[in-house]
Amino acid sequence: MIDLWLIGIGTGNPDHVTMEARRALGAAALVLVPRKGPDKTDLADLRHMILRECGVTAPIAEFDMPLRDESLPYAERVVAWHGEIARIWATAIARARPVGPVALLVWGDPGLYDSSLRIATRLHPAPRLHVVPGITALQALTAAHAIPINTINGAVTVTTGRRLRAGGWPPGAETVAVMLDGECSFLSLPPEGLQIWWGGFLGMPEQMLDSGPLATAGPRIAAARAQARERHGWMMDTYLLRYT
Amino acid sequence: MIDLWLIGIGTGNPDHVTMEARRALGAAALVLVPRKGPDKTDLADLRHMILRECGVTAPIAEFDMPLRDESLPYAERVVAWHGEIARIWATAIARARPVGPVALLVWGDPGLYDSSLRIATRLHPAPRLHVVPGITALQALTAAHAIPINTINGAVTVTTGRRLRAGGWPPGAETVAVMLDGECSFLSLPPEGLQIWWGGFLGMPEQMLDSGPLATAGPRIAAARAQARERHGWMMDTYLLRYT
Repeated sequence: MIDLWLIGIGTGNPDHVTMEARRALGAAALVLVPRKGPDKTDLADLRHMILRECGVTAPIAEFDMPLRDESLPYAERVVAWHGEIARIWATAIARARPVGPVALLVWGDPGLYDSSLRIATRLHPAPRLHVVPGITALQALTAAHAIPINTINGAVTVTTGRRLRAGGWPPGAETVAVMLDGECSFLSLPPEGLQIWWGGFLGMPEQMLDSGPLATAGPRIAAARAQARERHGWMMDTYLLRYT
Repeated sequence: MIDLWLIGIGTGNPDHVTMEARRALGAAALVLVPRKGPDKTDLADLRHMILRECGVTAPIAEFDMPLRDESLPYAERVVAWHGEIARIWATAIARARPVGPVALLVWGDPGLYDSSLRIATRLHPAPRLHVVPGITALQALTAAHAIPINTINGAVTVTTGRRLRAGGWPPGAETVAVMLDGECSFLSLPPEGLQIWWGGFLGMPEQMLDSGPLATAGPRIAAARAQARERHGWMMDTYLLRYT
């Protein structure tokens, strides 16, 4: 039975890496590294930098991420895509025949809006799964703004851009953290009384921060985000919204 | 102006410490360490162990945490308590006259259900605030169970035991993560259809894990928790609930 380690490495700052992640990477007999398309080459480079800094000597198996079949409805599309990635992992592992644990680097934390855990359960034979938690973009965001995620004894709803657009403000929520939002879904909310804390490229040298009343900060963030995306080729961002 | 670093160190596993936390601790000219009462001596010991492992050579100022005035209503009690802690920090800093940054170790992440950020804003003169994110108990929980925090494109409500007892299941929530719960508030919910993943002393050698349908796992967890608390003198735990 293969030991598969899903290792959270934080959001792009090599200093987010924990001692636990470092140790797990050092013990790996094979490291699987996805290539994510030409526009995100700098992310692949960052992974390799982290592997070097952690003193990884194991062979590195790079694989191409399959494209999602956009003709399928959302849920089916995701399930089919996970199955395809599982087959790619299985092939890479079978080829490398590692004598020891297999490691996979995960941006952020393997538990939060990441597919690796679901893909791993699709592997045959089933591996023994180990998860190393990592700093999420949400934590990098609130640390950079030096703000608490929650109010005193307050609840926080963590959700996606897709859900925010479809369902509006979650009923009864006080603080909402939004991840996986490629479309500035905050613009779809009535801005009255809402404050936004936004961050792009969190933890990276290119880090961008902005905050303020949603009514004025929202359009400003959307414009800066579009410009940075144009310049950079891609964008990863997240934000927190709160009634004040 | 003083630079005050609030440094997340994870949940009790020294390996949760990030390279960023290590660097910030190494650069500190003074480290503030709370004593939390005789029943939590092992937590204070753990802090000192982490300081040693991170090669901290700065003076360490220990301070006693004030008691909360239980005669006050909850919100006022918290505000008064924060003010008192801020005065203690200010006194410790004035005494030590550090030439360089002041560091404070925070369990978990300074952004999530922690008072340090609010206390820091009560300091006069105001310090320049820096936050280093750390692994939270919630992340240690889901990593230990090797489960995702969210379902695919699903939202997660992070809340407290107090709120769960007062308000029941958050309206519309699918996954609920509960922190700061000293009273097994999961027992107050109708258990039908709910699954629980629970963890105590997460990341520590004493780590306890249990999971299952709330109807059967709930009472079992409550019993094991009470026994461990009795044996250990204290208990830190957290859990995730999800309709399945």
